[in-house]
Amino acid sequence: MALPVEDSTFRNSMRLLASGVTIVATSFQGRRSGLTATAVCSLALSPARVLASINMQGHTYGLVSESRCMSVNLLAQDHQLLAERFAAKRAAEDEDRFVYGEWTTAMTGAPMLADALAALDCRVTEIIPLDTHAILIGVVEDISFGPHRPPLIHFEAGFTSVLARAETHS
Amino acid sequence: MALPVEDSTFRNSMRLLASGVTIVATSFQGRRSGLTATAVCSLALSPARVLASINMQGHTYGLVSESRCMSVNLLAQDHQLLAERFAAKRAAEDEDRFVYGEWTTAMTGAPMLADALAALDCRVTEIIPLDTHAILIGVVEDISFGPHRPPLIHFEAGFTSVLARAETHS
Repeated sequence: MALPVEDSTFRNSMRLLASGVTIVATSFQGRRSGLTATAVCSLALSPARVLASINMQGHTYGLVSESRCMSVNLLAQDHQLLAERFAAKRAAEDEDRFVYGEWTTAMTGAPMLADALAALDCRVTEIIPLDTHAILIGVVEDISFGPHRPPLIHFEAGFTSVLARAETHS
Repeated sequence: MALPVEDSTFRNSMRLLASGVTIVATSFQGRRSGLTATAVCSLALSPARVLASINMQGHTYGLVSESRCMSVNLLAQDHQLLAERFAAKRAAEDEDRFVYGEWTTAMTGAPMLADALAALDCRVTEIIPLDTHAILIGVVEDISFGPHRPPLIHFEAGFTSVLARAETHS
């Protein structure tokens, strides 16, 4: 076995993996919780499924484990402030985060961001713990679409967006 | 249980999930195989781990199951043609794909793209099958960095890149 790579080297490499930005949110017994997540991907069709990897030490993980539902809200460039608020260290109550943005309640009970590029309401069918993080697998039960606009992108530890197609060089 | 959402609706929502673009590659008994993958994310530290979700019907999955190693190569904007070639339907041999790009051999045996933004050499420690796709979990054993340049981004079924930070509007 080779020695594991340094965490700092790994972090530097992952800064170069661009990603869309989402808020994963849930609700259980009247309590809402959510966090900014970039480790989200499409998984499979029939039924439609998505995967999200989230830290197991956070409130959101605890609530998802109980509620077994989550929304995955794809953020637009104009959601940067919201992304920062849902990424911040917890101050007081999780509920404070939902003061920002317009949130509705999905069929599963999860909070849905009304103007997300797309908001997916998911039943969490599998939770795969892996040390610090857990992989959540959600079967998508409903999808709503907000106004079409540029996506929020996370790259090199900051937020940006995409080049308009006409601006690309290839 | 709610009715599952239509595959087409799900596809339309996933077009809006921007992502970096990678090539996941492996080698087993002298045979190389690789594919363009956007469902890749950072998973955990100590040890550093990444996750890639790939189709189980492809050659790459078959080889990874045997070799238990993979490289995850983060593509730059100038790799668009390479991304298209590794995403194309298989014509003849997988080996033909490696004619494009400069490939070296990593410690695990996996092919590494010399000028990737970052190339991660991984030991595949877990393979979690989920119908059509499998989640591969790789412990990162080595990382090499290529020249720094804009990343390749997949969004709305096409390729683009990010706005330079100065061009962002927030």
